Amino acid sequence: MPAERSEPTYLYSDEQVAAKSPLARTFLETRSRLNTIVNDADNYLVKRFYNIDHNTYLEGAIPAKYKELMGLVVSAGLRCDDCINYHIIQSFRLGATREEQEESLNVALVVGGSIVIPHLRRAYAMLAELYS
Amino acid sequence: MPAERSEPTYLYSDEQVAAKSPLARTFLETRSRLNTIVNDADNYLVKRFYNIDHNTYLEGAIPAKYKELMGLVVSAGLRCDDCINYHIIQSFRLGATREEQEESLNVALVVGGSIVIPHLRRAYAMLAELYS
Amino acid sequence: MPAERSEPTYLYSDEQVAAKSPLARTFLETRSRLNTIVNDADNYLVKRFYNIDHNTYLEGAIPAKYKELMGLVVSAGLRCDDCINYHIIQSFRLGATREEQEESLNVALVVGGSIVIPHLRRAYAMLAELYS
Amino acid sequence: MPAERSEPTYLYSDEQVAAKSPLARTFLETRSRLNTIVNDADNYLVKRFYNIDHNTYLEGAIPAKYKELMGLVVSAGLRCDDCINYHIIQSFRLGATREEQEESLNVALVVGGSIVIPHLRRAYAMLAELYS
Amino acid sequence: MPAERSEPTYLYSDEQVAAKSPLARTFLETRSRLNTIVNDADNYLVKRFYNIDHNTYLEGAIPAKYKELMGLVVSAGLRCDDCINYHIIQSFRLGATREEQEESLNVALVVGGSIVIPHLRRAYAMLAELYS
Amino acid sequence: MPAERSEPTYLYSDEQVAAKSPLARTFLETRSRLNTIVNDADNYLVKRFYNIDHNTYLEGAIPAKYKELMGLVVSAGLRCDDCINYHIIQSFRLGATREEQEESLNVALVVGGSIVIPHLRRAYAMLAELYS
Repeated sequence: MPAERSEPTYLYSDEQVAAKSPLARTFLETRSRLNTIVNDADNYLVKRFYNIDHNTYLEGAIPAKYKELMGLVVSAGLRCDDCINYHIIQSFRLGATREEQEESLNVALVVGGSIVIPHLRRAYAMLAELYS
Repeated sequence: MPAERSEPTYLYSDEQVAAKSPLARTFLETRSRLNTIVNDADNYLVKRFYNIDHNTYLEGAIPAKYKELMGLVVSAGLRCDDCINYHIIQSFRLGATREEQEESLNVALVVGGSIVIPHLRRAYAMLAELYS
Repeated sequence: MPAERSEPTYLYSDEQVAAKSPLARTFLETRSRLNTIVNDADNYLVKRFYNIDHNTYLEGAIPAKYKELMGLVVSAGLRCDDCINYHIIQSFRLGATREEQEESLNVALVVGGSIVIPHLRRAYAMLAELYS
Repeated sequence: MPAERSEPTYLYSDEQVAAKSPLARTFLETRSRLNTIVNDADNYLVKRFYNIDHNTYLEGAIPAKYKELMGLVVSAGLRCDDCINYHIIQSFRLGATREEQEESLNVALVVGGSIVIPHLRRAYAMLAELYS
Repeated sequence: MPAERSEPTYLYSDEQVAAKSPLARTFLETRSRLNTIVNDADNYLVKRFYNIDHNTYLEGAIPAKYKELMGLVVSAGLRCDDCINYHIIQSFRLGATREEQEESLNVALVVGGSIVIPHLRRAYAMLAELYS
Repeated sequence: MPAERSEPTYLYSDEQVAAKSPLARTFLETRSRLNTIVNDADNYLVKRFYNIDHNTYLEGAIPAKYKELMGLVVSAGLRCDDCINYHIIQSFRLGATREEQEESLNVALVVGGSIVIPHLRRAYAMLAELYS
């Protein structure tokens, strides 16, 4: 039986997130529009990858909130703005505090160095909107 | 006042870890030997960086155990064997279960892709020793 | 005698590609405008690098079409949008089918992980235009 | 129906490869030993990832040989020695010529730059054994 | 006593740079706006990291101008546009000639390969404005 | 006329470096052995890349010593041990002081973050031998 197993309970919907943060809205709408194009292509391996990706962040031995924050850390370490935006929003939806988001970004900053800073700046802009 | 603030309480010393895992022993001894060379150089900025690095993983809004697991995820995502070894050991010393370590590595695998697999294999070899 | 040796035969010109895909047009025009600036600088090593880069994708033991698809895979794995756009267009001009493009992107997705997904989405948007 | 669909036909077994190249033997034995440790852990998501990874390189719109060479290019571009070794061996087993392997590595060298060279050197050492 | 020790003397202010180059102006204004958001968050570790980052580029055994050009090389090698813009501007402010900037970018191009080229193009666009 | 133009004058031969540092000797001998294998393959594009690589570090607007130190910074930022070893040795041969080498590594450490530290440790081990 896999450790990862149940869907997390979100405190906020994507719509509520978008209502709170214009930056989140822009990101979510662009992502949704492009995902429609990918879904229309109906590529078998892509769908399987999306499925495994989804299962990675379920509640398990590690709570989903911390998994999303882990996703944030590695996304910032690998300097992927879209991934950073996504995991900030997911962490927010799962109740992560601003302090937890910042501490996660600190791990990425120290591990990944000053090249993370441009991404950190954009991350803080979204945090400022979400936690205002 | 910074969120990061207090030293975590380790359940095991480095010596206990080394006694349990030959792979951990080799890593810790090599790291210790090379750190002595770095410390002898007494470079001001390196010492400051080591200090900020240390402070990143203190107990804070996020428990130290999860921060070390975050360090593991980003290290595996960035494919740094020494960093992976270090954070596996630190997480172990802070009481992380094997299941928590594996779920963390799963985040890194899915985010970072199959190029993470060679590092995953070596990580599992150390996990097998530590959690035997 | 080098293995790489003859210019490939393109089925479409850049102009035909731009006429088919607004995303390709924007990319090609921006690239052309900036390349003019680079060319005006007339830097000796840059010119030599551009030359070696050009020769890498000639017909050889491996057909040029597959080399361009290889360029697509490594560009997606290294997460370079401009490079992805370029190699999708070149592969299209050499007669690659949409299925071949998608299978190439699948290699990049599985090797490079979910951080490739934002680039995959944008790639699929261009594919949808080129192969409509 | 997925584009990727049938197992490729290998011209050589792993054993035949190992008999031809001591470097390949060392790689294959280490990989096999560590994969046993990973398999023993029986992690659900890892197994699914291994499965999707396997399916990526099946015969499809693109012949399996070229997919393995694509795997070689992206592995070299991402500078993963184990992955390079693996895809050189797989390409060899599927009948890739030495010239095809070198042209693939050229794409990686030009895309990835001189930091690829240390990996290129080690790749050539294995090629020299396999194609002697 | 640290090797790095004194503030460099800038030949131009940020304002003079912005007056000369519209691209630099856009970059500097965006950076300034986002840095205000980061500063408002008043994160202790971020502030310490910014401080150590600042100290890295002071006059020392290596003149500050060459350190900024080193920052340019590693930023281009790591493909970070914001970092490239920043170090081009800093090098310009410290009197680096266009030829020195181009030679630095050449090191990054050859070390980092053709995936650096899109960043090189954008760098040359700023160089063309700054050195016109 | 290219900016890069004349061969630098080395203060030490590779043999003198190897006599001073066992770590450098091991690196140089392995590199030489593998380069022989690459040279025997006589690949046209590889030879051209090696040639352009050589020309990048010639005396020019930027002195060769600083170019080698730049190569060190970007190699450490990209975490390539062989490249780090090579540029430390080249910088040493061109008269770089230990302090200059350490300041260069500091740029890489701050730009690239704590994942650079394992490489920094090994770099310091070679520096300790070369500058003893």
